[in-house]
Amino acid sequence: MAEKNRAVAYKSAGTVEVIDIDYPTFELKDGPGVNPANVGRKVPHGAIVKTVATNICGSDQHMVRGRTTAPPDLVLGHEITGEVVEVGPDVEFVKVGDLVSVPFNIACGRCKNCKERKTGICLNVNPDRPGSAYGYVDMGGWVGGQANYVLVPYADFNALVFPDKDRAMEKILDLAMLSDIFPTGFHGAVTAGVGVGSTVYVAGAGPVGLAAATGAQLLGAAVVIVGDMNADRLAQARSFGCETVDLTKGAPEDQIEQILGVPEVDCGVDAVGFEAKGHGSDSDHEAPATVLNSLMDITAAGGALGIPGLYVTGDPGGIDEAAQKGSLSLSLGTGWAKSLSFTTGQCPVMKYNYGLMQAILHDRVHIAKNVNATAIGIEDAPRGYAEFDSGAAQKFVIDANGYLGS
Amino acid sequence: MAEKNRAVAYKSAGTVEVIDIDYPTFELKDGPGVNPANVGRKVPHGAIVKTVATNICGSDQHMVRGRTTAPPDLVLGHEITGEVVEVGPDVEFVKVGDLVSVPFNIACGRCKNCKERKTGICLNVNPDRPGSAYGYVDMGGWVGGQANYVLVPYADFNALVFPDKDRAMEKILDLAMLSDIFPTGFHGAVTAGVGVGSTVYVAGAGPVGLAAATGAQLLGAAVVIVGDMNADRLAQARSFGCETVDLTKGAPEDQIEQILGVPEVDCGVDAVGFEAKGHGSDSDHEAPATVLNSLMDITAAGGALGIPGLYVTGDPGGIDEAAQKGSLSLSLGTGWAKSLSFTTGQCPVMKYNYGLMQAILHDRVHIAKNVNATAIGIEDAPRGYAEFDSGAAQKFVIDANGYLGS
Amino acid sequence: MAEKNRAVAYKSAGTVEVIDIDYPTFELKDGPGVNPANVGRKVPHGAIVKTVATNICGSDQHMVRGRTTAPPDLVLGHEITGEVVEVGPDVEFVKVGDLVSVPFNIACGRCKNCKERKTGICLNVNPDRPGSAYGYVDMGGWVGGQANYVLVPYADFNALVFPDKDRAMEKILDLAMLSDIFPTGFHGAVTAGVGVGSTVYVAGAGPVGLAAATGAQLLGAAVVIVGDMNADRLAQARSFGCETVDLTKGAPEDQIEQILGVPEVDCGVDAVGFEAKGHGSDSDHEAPATVLNSLMDITAAGGALGIPGLYVTGDPGGIDEAAQKGSLSLSLGTGWAKSLSFTTGQCPVMKYNYGLMQAILHDRVHIAKNVNATAIGIEDAPRGYAEFDSGAAQKFVIDANGYLGS
Amino acid sequence: MAEKNRAVAYKSAGTVEVIDIDYPTFELKDGPGVNPANVGRKVPHGAIVKTVATNICGSDQHMVRGRTTAPPDLVLGHEITGEVVEVGPDVEFVKVGDLVSVPFNIACGRCKNCKERKTGICLNVNPDRPGSAYGYVDMGGWVGGQANYVLVPYADFNALVFPDKDRAMEKILDLAMLSDIFPTGFHGAVTAGVGVGSTVYVAGAGPVGLAAATGAQLLGAAVVIVGDMNADRLAQARSFGCETVDLTKGAPEDQIEQILGVPEVDCGVDAVGFEAKGHGSDSDHEAPATVLNSLMDITAAGGALGIPGLYVTGDPGGIDEAAQKGSLSLSLGTGWAKSLSFTTGQCPVMKYNYGLMQAILHDRVHIAKNVNATAIGIEDAPRGYAEFDSGAAQKFVIDANGYLGS
Repeated sequence: MAEKNRAVAYKSAGTVEVIDIDYPTFELKDGPGVNPANVGRKVPHGAIVKTVATNICGSDQHMVRGRTTAPPDLVLGHEITGEVVEVGPDVEFVKVGDLVSVPFNIACGRCKNCKERKTGICLNVNPDRPGSAYGYVDMGGWVGGQANYVLVPYADFNALVFPDKDRAMEKILDLAMLSDIFPTGFHGAVTAGVGVGSTVYVAGAGPVGLAAATGAQLLGAAVVIVGDMNADRLAQARSFGCETVDLTKGAPEDQIEQILGVPEVDCGVDAVGFEAKGHGSDSDHEAPATVLNSLMDITAAGGALGIPGLYVTGDPGGIDEAAQKGSLSLSLGTGWAKSLSFTTGQCPVMKYNYGLMQAILHDRVHIAKNVNATAIGIEDAPRGYAEFDSGAAQKFVIDANGYLGS
Repeated sequence: MAEKNRAVAYKSAGTVEVIDIDYPTFELKDGPGVNPANVGRKVPHGAIVKTVATNICGSDQHMVRGRTTAPPDLVLGHEITGEVVEVGPDVEFVKVGDLVSVPFNIACGRCKNCKERKTGICLNVNPDRPGSAYGYVDMGGWVGGQANYVLVPYADFNALVFPDKDRAMEKILDLAMLSDIFPTGFHGAVTAGVGVGSTVYVAGAGPVGLAAATGAQLLGAAVVIVGDMNADRLAQARSFGCETVDLTKGAPEDQIEQILGVPEVDCGVDAVGFEAKGHGSDSDHEAPATVLNSLMDITAAGGALGIPGLYVTGDPGGIDEAAQKGSLSLSLGTGWAKSLSFTTGQCPVMKYNYGLMQAILHDRVHIAKNVNATAIGIEDAPRGYAEFDSGAAQKFVIDANGYLGS
Repeated sequence: MAEKNRAVAYKSAGTVEVIDIDYPTFELKDGPGVNPANVGRKVPHGAIVKTVATNICGSDQHMVRGRTTAPPDLVLGHEITGEVVEVGPDVEFVKVGDLVSVPFNIACGRCKNCKERKTGICLNVNPDRPGSAYGYVDMGGWVGGQANYVLVPYADFNALVFPDKDRAMEKILDLAMLSDIFPTGFHGAVTAGVGVGSTVYVAGAGPVGLAAATGAQLLGAAVVIVGDMNADRLAQARSFGCETVDLTKGAPEDQIEQILGVPEVDCGVDAVGFEAKGHGSDSDHEAPATVLNSLMDITAAGGALGIPGLYVTGDPGGIDEAAQKGSLSLSLGTGWAKSLSFTTGQCPVMKYNYGLMQAILHDRVHIAKNVNATAIGIEDAPRGYAEFDSGAAQKFVIDANGYLGS
Repeated sequence: MAEKNRAVAYKSAGTVEVIDIDYPTFELKDGPGVNPANVGRKVPHGAIVKTVATNICGSDQHMVRGRTTAPPDLVLGHEITGEVVEVGPDVEFVKVGDLVSVPFNIACGRCKNCKERKTGICLNVNPDRPGSAYGYVDMGGWVGGQANYVLVPYADFNALVFPDKDRAMEKILDLAMLSDIFPTGFHGAVTAGVGVGSTVYVAGAGPVGLAAATGAQLLGAAVVIVGDMNADRLAQARSFGCETVDLTKGAPEDQIEQILGVPEVDCGVDAVGFEAKGHGSDSDHEAPATVLNSLMDITAAGGALGIPGLYVTGDPGGIDEAAQKGSLSLSLGTGWAKSLSFTTGQCPVMKYNYGLMQAILHDRVHIAKNVNATAIGIEDAPRGYAEFDSGAAQKFVIDANGYLGS
């Protein structure tokens, strides 16, 4: 087989293009961003997936904005849902024809961390450090999935097979969120300690923030408050029952007090990460510690902070020297006095995707509606990146192969 | 103060009456069912509560049916919500005028078990064994709360104060469920391992079963199935989105398979207890192990069983000698082969009541509607007992002081 | 390669023999006890292991005593430690020459349960039900490991590679306990809720009981009490700091009270299972519910019971009809009044074996000494079975290939 | 009663003196450091304790060094063990004559946080914020316990009664560590995720560090490594089986690699806090973020950091403006890339002190020896402070009433 394979690639700061790439084989070949130690790696345990829905993610934007060392022609995309069209000789349970969700973290299923469900820090897929992802700089070089076809290694372990294909296609935009943002937001809520009756503040109303808010609702939160400076995104949050805080008006305490009667919440989620900006009149420049310091202020003593928002070890575009090496000036004294705890890192998608799939299939949650999932053709991907970057209250889903009729 | 105090009392098998009892003081005086070692116990830490809503519970029925050694004139009632009208000299934080929910388990807040949140097995309130409750045989002799006034010991620890009295009165029938059945059902769901996306089977559609089903929904269950033989109660379960299994048609496996496509669920809740009956054609006689054996059959390997349904150490009315001493013939081999786990015992209400209160106050759950809470006057309590015993799909709430306008 | 392969086989009730079997290949061939649906199954993910230490287990004895439907010539052995001599084409990380511990539960590493660390109930290895093991009746038919060579499927997932071969050989008798009894006993302690400062009662001083006691010590228990009727085994328990209870003198309460000052412990472990006998004067006949009922009596309210001891769904040799179908007459009322919880099932070895290996390698625990591990040649296996069955306070380790110099 | 009451008081930066103070009554009277809102507070729930052992703590040193706003004559001491000599009218279970350990965190046992076991952030004892302690600046003003007599509020909740007085006196130096440092160090180990087989690095070999190391051993750690720059303290750590890292030689990675073969550990504990210094040649000046940044480097991906070391919201003596307001420059990017989690705050002593007491009484742990507990007379307290400040590898226990024969 050697189908045509169009793919969305990073070209230079601010520019993505749709290019032609090779149809995948069961080997990781050399290419832009492929770790030398991974070149030539055999992937008999892989499956080739024809994409049905492959989403643009906020973390892709870090590359596209030129805030990383991503090389030109790196194929983007780590939010992959699709149909299996070929399987390698070592694949035993996933079958050709299966409709699958692919966690964005690539994991071998055989190392100590994977055995402990820590699939976000698999030891065997990225020669540089624990943890990997498709189409991402410094993550091993696995080719991105914003394409017609993509290779999924360790397919029996990684692929979540939807139990009924027809029924799955009816909810495909919801299910497409299982590869990353729904579990990622949910993980933020879980690690923030959200439970039945909690009050929750989610910093950031982008797709991950909206997914965290949705996750908090699903976990039984009494009140979910979402803060952002983007009016459209706040309106989106209100559309499914969240309260909102407009950060252009200043720090969130007062607005939280108006909602809850107290200026504190039980649980805090950082769905923003290192590209945070200040609040109120400071909102026009980056202030990478703003979100975490603010969350320490507004989270009640004994609470927890879930931090799905990405913080990096190096940010060439950082606002100052400290930011450029990933250091933040944190009011840890405040956190300590309040006995707070903090959980960081990639979401281990596999811990959550099965349960969230069940919740979707049985109509308990409508994540696509909540994040305003919008299908676009693959040739429109550059426009999708641009609109998303400009703050559209939408989650763009690339319909590379026409399954979604976009 | 010496107000008139009408109270619902057990008289003999099948009979309850409303009688006059003394207005409470800050001392546990001798009386029907009071443990001799508790007679004369000083209660300076107590509060006197004027009841607003005091519910009839299925476990009261065990006494009323004559299945226990409860003495005549034992005042019933352990589901208490009310207004504080007096506080003892050691009460520091609860104030006269506060509207409070009182957990059915009486707990001192000072023993090793209370410090570990195991308030269902407090070491200091029942001279005979860990654990106590108001108005219950062999539980220490604390006077029941189906009355105008009731003494609540260790009030600062036990009473959950509603933050806003007016707002609370708007949802008082919901909040009235916090003293027992809502946390009890919720505990069943929690200990059955219910989480986001779970499939759940609840055995029994009485109030605790319906509360367990509600709790499972709040915890994010994908599907909640309730089984019973009472058509009205099953209709009640369907009214808030549960699937149902009619046990007059036989064991639940086949009906579960029709609903889920597989004959097993992830989580099982026993909301029936020791007065269980057989399924299908065996449904006309007691078979105390039926529910647990059935749950072992239908719970998938690796699952858990939450067992809020009461099992007793002695049941004079048991169907045979084993049942009379509380022994059950359990297919433990089945459970072992499936690596199941089992959690029994009184719900430690205080673990859950704050969070569930928040969920009620913020309109996330409508437990009163789900269990069909129905207010009746205190003089109507005997009728309430009779109708509940005959299988009415209602949860009777005694409006002893006219707050509910019934 | 086609090495000679001697193996220990069940012949008939009371008889085991050492026989010649085929050298393994990467396929599960037909043979005694092989599930028809597994015949011909390809195992490219497997490794062939030359055994270094392969132990006799108490659960093997159930077969050998004729208490199961095991067919003649079924090769025994599920406690396997050895050197990898061949790997299938799909094995990527385990290397020829690696010294490995093999968990007794066979697991695919790719199903929902394995992904949740529930490797004792893998969905893909036993066509009849979740869960499998080497050399065990009704477990799929994977050939036992009491042999020179054995096939280990899904080797990358199942095999625990010891980090330094020479250092590992110095502690090989300890490490040999990682395949089953050490994790199994440890799991019993963990699921009984043992923590720092706990008081613990372990029912049974066979190898699993001694391993549970060792595990409880490692978890920080303040006092570990072991009960049995076998004086040698009790002496063995005392040899590493346990207190003991002699059950020939009656139920354990009084002796526990002499040790602790109270007749109850925090945590109870059932390391006996379905072939339990009565206590004191009843100790000459089987009474399968004795251990669990006794543990409910002596475990304090709020405690937990870990039940690693095997209970079966069918026992042709059971003492009565109920026992023959795996039903036990349990005083659940006692358990309920005390809010006890219960955890049953195969230990998911992979949850614990890495940590326990580290504790062994760093000299924190001496499990081989504690269980009195004794190496014997493979031709002596029948004698080992007989002595173990007669109550020897030893754990027999078959030195099939002379690595241990026995 | 109006016994003479000598007490250790802070006078000025660098100076403590033993002064005469009033014998306590069941009321919190005005005095140095007492919060105005607490003046006159009635304490009928209190007990007056005659101290048996009252220890000098590293966190006292922050005040004594003049790094806080503590006023002159503030009575120091929050590590209290003693004999109850009077109880208030609301005390029901603690008796005169009881020998008790008093958790350093004062807690009411009646608020939401106490009910959730979060006794380090009790809502009712400190008018300024959640959480309190005896003899500490800005903690509500409860009089310190380095004195002959001290008032313990909410005695039924706070006091841990030793079950047998004579047996307790035999281990009194060990039991004296239950009021703070043993649970505090243990909490550090627990929140760092220490379990059976873990490798652990403890930053700091002061008493809390040594207690954390002891706690890690008790939790089953395979290897415990302690880092410090003080040779005597490192020798103390080695005396009970720890490995050590000498930080005067530079950052810990290399030395850890020599010990473990890898430069990383599973779990990291910060037992230093905000007065941290640099490593190696930077070790002569404060560098408050050093410890946490170093722990992020050396803790393996997926690990956790327990942070019992104190971080403050304001430090007038901080090295720069950021430090003075409690801000630290943290490499959060490193932590995020490794999916680390962080737990801060006061140890909720009551979660651990019962279990640790059991471990002491049953001879499972020898904390007094490990921290080199040394009894001194109360008049020698100033010397004790000075020697501790100069780095003595000792934990000073003030024998105010001669029980210890010092």
